[in-house]
Amino acid sequence: MATHARDTVEVGYDEFCGALAAKDLQPLWTQAARLMPPEPIPRTLPWLWKWTTVLPLARRAGELITIERGGERRVLALANPGLGGLPYTSSTLWGAYQYLGARESAPAHRHTPSALRFVVEGTGVWTTVDGDACDMSPGDLVLTPSWTWHDHSNPTDTAMVWFDGLDLPLAAALEAVFFEPYPELMQVAAADHNASTRLHRGPAMRPLGEEPNPRHSPLLVYRYRDTDAALDDLLRARGGSIASVEFVNPSNGASAMPTLGCEMHRLVAGRRTPVCRRVGSAVHVVFSGSGSSVIAGERFDWERGDVFVVPSWAPVEHEAAEPADLFAVTDRPVLQALHLYREETLGHPQEVLRTFVPK
Amino acid sequence: MATHARDTVEVGYDEFCGALAAKDLQPLWTQAARLMPPEPIPRTLPWLWKWTTVLPLARRAGELITIERGGERRVLALANPGLGGLPYTSSTLWGAYQYLGARESAPAHRHTPSALRFVVEGTGVWTTVDGDACDMSPGDLVLTPSWTWHDHSNPTDTAMVWFDGLDLPLAAALEAVFFEPYPELMQVAAADHNASTRLHRGPAMRPLGEEPNPRHSPLLVYRYRDTDAALDDLLRARGGSIASVEFVNPSNGASAMPTLGCEMHRLVAGRRTPVCRRVGSAVHVVFSGSGSSVIAGERFDWERGDVFVVPSWAPVEHEAAEPADLFAVTDRPVLQALHLYREETLGHPQEVLRTFVPK
Amino acid sequence: MATHARDTVEVGYDEFCGALAAKDLQPLWTQAARLMPPEPIPRTLPWLWKWTTVLPLARRAGELITIERGGERRVLALANPGLGGLPYTSSTLWGAYQYLGARESAPAHRHTPSALRFVVEGTGVWTTVDGDACDMSPGDLVLTPSWTWHDHSNPTDTAMVWFDGLDLPLAAALEAVFFEPYPELMQVAAADHNASTRLHRGPAMRPLGEEPNPRHSPLLVYRYRDTDAALDDLLRARGGSIASVEFVNPSNGASAMPTLGCEMHRLVAGRRTPVCRRVGSAVHVVFSGSGSSVIAGERFDWERGDVFVVPSWAPVEHEAAEPADLFAVTDRPVLQALHLYREETLGHPQEVLRTFVPK
Amino acid sequence: MATHARDTVEVGYDEFCGALAAKDLQPLWTQAARLMPPEPIPRTLPWLWKWTTVLPLARRAGELITIERGGERRVLALANPGLGGLPYTSSTLWGAYQYLGARESAPAHRHTPSALRFVVEGTGVWTTVDGDACDMSPGDLVLTPSWTWHDHSNPTDTAMVWFDGLDLPLAAALEAVFFEPYPELMQVAAADHNASTRLHRGPAMRPLGEEPNPRHSPLLVYRYRDTDAALDDLLRARGGSIASVEFVNPSNGASAMPTLGCEMHRLVAGRRTPVCRRVGSAVHVVFSGSGSSVIAGERFDWERGDVFVVPSWAPVEHEAAEPADLFAVTDRPVLQALHLYREETLGHPQEVLRTFVPK
Repeated sequence: MATHARDTVEVGYDEFCGALAAKDLQPLWTQAARLMPPEPIPRTLPWLWKWTTVLPLARRAGELITIERGGERRVLALANPGLGGLPYTSSTLWGAYQYLGARESAPAHRHTPSALRFVVEGTGVWTTVDGDACDMSPGDLVLTPSWTWHDHSNPTDTAMVWFDGLDLPLAAALEAVFFEPYPELMQVAAADHNASTRLHRGPAMRPLGEEPNPRHSPLLVYRYRDTDAALDDLLRARGGSIASVEFVNPSNGASAMPTLGCEMHRLVAGRRTPVCRRVGSAVHVVFSGSGSSVIAGERFDWERGDVFVVPSWAPVEHEAAEPADLFAVTDRPVLQALHLYREETLGHPQEVLRTFVPK
Repeated sequence: MATHARDTVEVGYDEFCGALAAKDLQPLWTQAARLMPPEPIPRTLPWLWKWTTVLPLARRAGELITIERGGERRVLALANPGLGGLPYTSSTLWGAYQYLGARESAPAHRHTPSALRFVVEGTGVWTTVDGDACDMSPGDLVLTPSWTWHDHSNPTDTAMVWFDGLDLPLAAALEAVFFEPYPELMQVAAADHNASTRLHRGPAMRPLGEEPNPRHSPLLVYRYRDTDAALDDLLRARGGSIASVEFVNPSNGASAMPTLGCEMHRLVAGRRTPVCRRVGSAVHVVFSGSGSSVIAGERFDWERGDVFVVPSWAPVEHEAAEPADLFAVTDRPVLQALHLYREETLGHPQEVLRTFVPK
Repeated sequence: MATHARDTVEVGYDEFCGALAAKDLQPLWTQAARLMPPEPIPRTLPWLWKWTTVLPLARRAGELITIERGGERRVLALANPGLGGLPYTSSTLWGAYQYLGARESAPAHRHTPSALRFVVEGTGVWTTVDGDACDMSPGDLVLTPSWTWHDHSNPTDTAMVWFDGLDLPLAAALEAVFFEPYPELMQVAAADHNASTRLHRGPAMRPLGEEPNPRHSPLLVYRYRDTDAALDDLLRARGGSIASVEFVNPSNGASAMPTLGCEMHRLVAGRRTPVCRRVGSAVHVVFSGSGSSVIAGERFDWERGDVFVVPSWAPVEHEAAEPADLFAVTDRPVLQALHLYREETLGHPQEVLRTFVPK
Repeated sequence: MATHARDTVEVGYDEFCGALAAKDLQPLWTQAARLMPPEPIPRTLPWLWKWTTVLPLARRAGELITIERGGERRVLALANPGLGGLPYTSSTLWGAYQYLGARESAPAHRHTPSALRFVVEGTGVWTTVDGDACDMSPGDLVLTPSWTWHDHSNPTDTAMVWFDGLDLPLAAALEAVFFEPYPELMQVAAADHNASTRLHRGPAMRPLGEEPNPRHSPLLVYRYRDTDAALDDLLRARGGSIASVEFVNPSNGASAMPTLGCEMHRLVAGRRTPVCRRVGSAVHVVFSGSGSSVIAGERFDWERGDVFVVPSWAPVEHEAAEPADLFAVTDRPVLQALHLYREETLGHPQEVLRTFVPK
């Protein structure tokens, strides 16, 4: 040990730092303030992707790319420019638009990252989840929970484009990603579609004897007609500028999937929502209406099909120009499970420092 | 101590037992087998009350009895003859029929026993629960959870009779009964009825930010149209002789109330259900159809409005003559919470030893 | 139905009540105030049994009674005179003293009621629980959780007497009592006694991979030396007139058994504790010291080995004449699990209306 | 939209990819296999840091660096060479050695990342956590849970070096890091040290009325003498090549902190442990003894004070040359909370492909 000591430490400060690096050590004191800032300094940038930009590119992908084993999906990932080239929308969330051509199908596989599909427009496609074919229509939310087999089928003559949300960045950061192709190209789905919605159709009823605390929601599709009615009722009952529901696991009231929070927000036209900030990020998909959001002092104008991301702890407020529904996927269940969640309402509208110019 | 010893023990066995009794002591060895039987020996008897008997008596009560503070309710308790004169339907459950005359109301109060209302026939009455007026129609289940204010209003020209289920025998055995009259005769209900059903209308949606683990279900009414659809779907999906749903707290998937399990069972005509026995008792209300049940070897024929009780650990099987819906209130959540629940399916139909003759 | 109606209701009020009784119906309106009192009116009476009375009777039982299959145990139940002749100490708890003679053993069996043993004096006996021999010494608490095999062995030349606490009245009220004799007279215990205490000896360590949420505590003995040290520390840290610990399941922090709360209280001499009342009953065993308690206005003087019971919602306060340790078994976990628990501290000492004269 | 389409898609495939990049979009099909590998491909490398290397560098840091506000701590982070220059030991865990000179103190602050201190050698220093001074001795584990105030004091004439473990990489990935300096330089600690250990000293006792489900363990120090005894007992009771305990929250049996699993493993000399792999990483600190571990086919020889890291899903086995105790900090509670945990035991020893040469 004495020898080592002589070798390494009888040097000045710079050389000392070099000696540390040579031994795979790093000083904390030079980077403490960066590693432990007073408040989160997200790498995720507030950002927005235009439907009018994404849709033609998705269609062009439909012409250029064939779906097959290996590539698996024709997906355009919404890559946040703050994340150094990673195809992630925030530090924990993956948002993307997927294109499935007429009479096409996307092969069956499963993975530990959890995924959801949210439909902005189009109909006729179904996602088969563990053998249950889930029809997809505008405003519907379809779950493909962690490690469930899933494939997509489009028997129609029209291509369909929908939003994909995944916890892939989180699962990757946890080094917990497993993937397995299904033995066949596609699952054989039951002739009778949407079985899960029939078994959990009503409010607050559970087939007697069913597992009370399953790993993921036994309900795989949340229909827009139900969401729409719930938001309507909520707005009428409570008033205000915004009504919000969370999609939950009907068996135990937990979030629909352990790592992804799914929400729908209805904005009243002409009313500014309170300014809030929350630990954790949220990816919003504009299902209907138009308006603008101010995120950390930057103004984003949005309309149907646009996607925007709110980074962790960034103040955010919305104002709809016409009545609007925003779907959101968040990492809130993760932060709550780990006791790292915080939120606060700020007392005043934000000063708009700049306006986002979509690419 | 020596003195005491001399006084008490220099006697023979009979005198010894007398000495014990004088000191408020009892020998276990003489009653061990009775206190600890191999299997539960319920005091509750399998029993049945006929709608055709109860209804005219309830109407007669309507003529004879006035509802006011003190008496509070015009209720006929279904008193199990095995329980030594107590007005209880089983050792843990209270079942009753309540009569509310035209243009009558039953005053507001609250109590720690949890209660439910199940409607066999009639409409137009509402139960106001903590200010939310819950309309009651055939097949609906209305909750008045522990310590919620509740009153009943009948603005119509027709009397109404419904089934009441309570955990009163349990709460009494636990010496945990509190009661409080409301300061006014009646609550002032919101003009807009059924608020709870609007906020929890859809399957598996929760207003964002709502308490995730409330003391009782925030949904106060479970509508028959939803129950009917769920049973229909369940029967189609799984087949068999019986479909069963449990009514749960939409916030956390727990039983609708912590001490009362609420279930609805749909029987297929002409199919005998498996023989089961369960720890804990169940009170069944025949909502529709007719048929018979064999309980501990005794046959009970039932039709709409009849109520029958299945004691703890008694083997039971049902057979509907025509398609039938049975509502059931049970103490299962209690037994499960205390880790005392068991159930088993027995392999063969029971031998019918006798047939119940209704009074 | 019309016929029935004519038969039964064209009578006056008294006859109407008779008609109800004939049909196993009871009117609520005549007994509402008794069934639903403003506060619990326990049938359990505050009561006390003297060690100097029980011990000689237990010894006399040792001379008169042989332990064998069927009788199973030489137990003197502390029968509350408020409970109509039942051998129960409160409406939910069974307290008793058990006598095991020199070189005797009590046969192996199991039952769904949960039980505990608390040792006031003596040593050398062990209780074997699912094959693990648990040595019993003064101040120790030994669990025989629901449905675990257990027998008692006394290899010494001296008889031993200890306190038994069970939830038998509760399990009986729930009609959930099962009992099974062990195939042999006694279990074969491991040569190495007290295995459970070695695996859960330290504070807050769990063998890696062990079931995190077992049905009952994996720790079967709580040693007085640990309880003593914990109470000492607690009293020093927090001061006051009383220090109280609850014995918990080390795997999940729940009560040691789902239906029985186990507590030890250390009283400072000459200090009156606050007046409290709680829903649910508690049976106290005086382990050491002497003093008095005022329960619902009645004064009880106690010394080592005495047992007294506090009924539900009865105000209680203690005052030790010399430093005292009180073991208590309660039904609090039951009331908490069912959301029926309440407690309150009353602002002033009780007026002593009478003094209990022990039999 | 048509215009956009003309602008962007009438190009070939390469140009199409360029068009995507220009719009912050990325194709999934080119990187699906990398993003979703069959099994986790951790960036974390199996690695080892030598105590004989770190200690002299830590001492040299003691000469060169002053501790003050801003730098806060004299810490050498163990930087995994697989993580691209980040000062992290694995993708989710921060491991480091901290040096505190004679008569020095490190200022009080708090942060949302949870931290632990594990002592390899030295004594006399304490860490004050929310006002409770926790003395640190060899083998002790001290918690500074998320958002608790903490500072370090060394009143002795000898410097001390200990291991720090944090969830900082995880909290950073979740963009959930908050930091706050204490208003004063140091907290005023209670004169009586180690209060938390006195209140939770015994096995399975909880002060009556204490919060049953606190955010973090109320016990802040786990003493080696308890750990030692528990491992000894466990090894004697169960045999085998390894005994392992997990440090838990005594209030609810959860992991000591929600994001960090803390374990101690005792290895029997000359016995090879089974080959296991687990999702999630573990940082091991050699507290005593010496031996070697094979991690993903690479052999690491270790002795007292060395630190090595096992990446996610890497097969690992240990063999002690002399009896050894390994402390481990893991992210297992995170993976379990998110339902992403898996583990498996592999049937055969690994082939050693290479041997790690420490720097």
